[in-house]
Amino acid sequence: MKARVHVMLKDGVLDPQGEAVRNALGHLGFEGVGAVRQGKVIELDLTGSDKAAAEAEVRAMCEKLLANTVIEKYTVEIV
Amino acid sequence: MKARVHVMLKDGVLDPQGEAVRNALGHLGFEGVGAVRQGKVIELDLTGSDKAAAEAEVRAMCEKLLANTVIEKYTVEIV
Repeated sequence: MKARVHVMLKDGVLDPQGEAVRNALGHLGFEGVGAVRQGKVIELDLTGSDKAAAEAEVRAMCEKLLANTVIEKYTVEIV
Repeated sequence: MKARVHVMLKDGVLDPQGEAVRNALGHLGFEGVGAVRQGKVIELDLTGSDKAAAEAEVRAMCEKLLANTVIEKYTVEIV
């Protein structure tokens, strides 16, 4: 089973990395680009076959290690 | 319109960041975690309403700036 975790900065938190990408795209001539946010995606190969248990475990991983929940939000997808 | 870009290291390319996450999860007592790959996700707000044109433009952004196509692969999703 595979899990995919998205970790993004929360909406109110300034994202200098995304801002840098937006500026660079502007310099390269790409127009019509508004806000840009950059985050992390983590793909995990999991053993076990219980989808609900896997999702709960991956959420625990996010809380403990993968995301800084003070400034980041995460979503878990089991695929 | 929003575009979401995933940039991941190509399959053969060593991913030390993912490997570090895997080790850390092991030390925290999470078992049953196989390979871990870490990548970037970039969310762009786009003006314009032509989906196909937007996807083509975002692909051009990936080729020029967002991904290093020597070692990285990308997927574009218009949402």
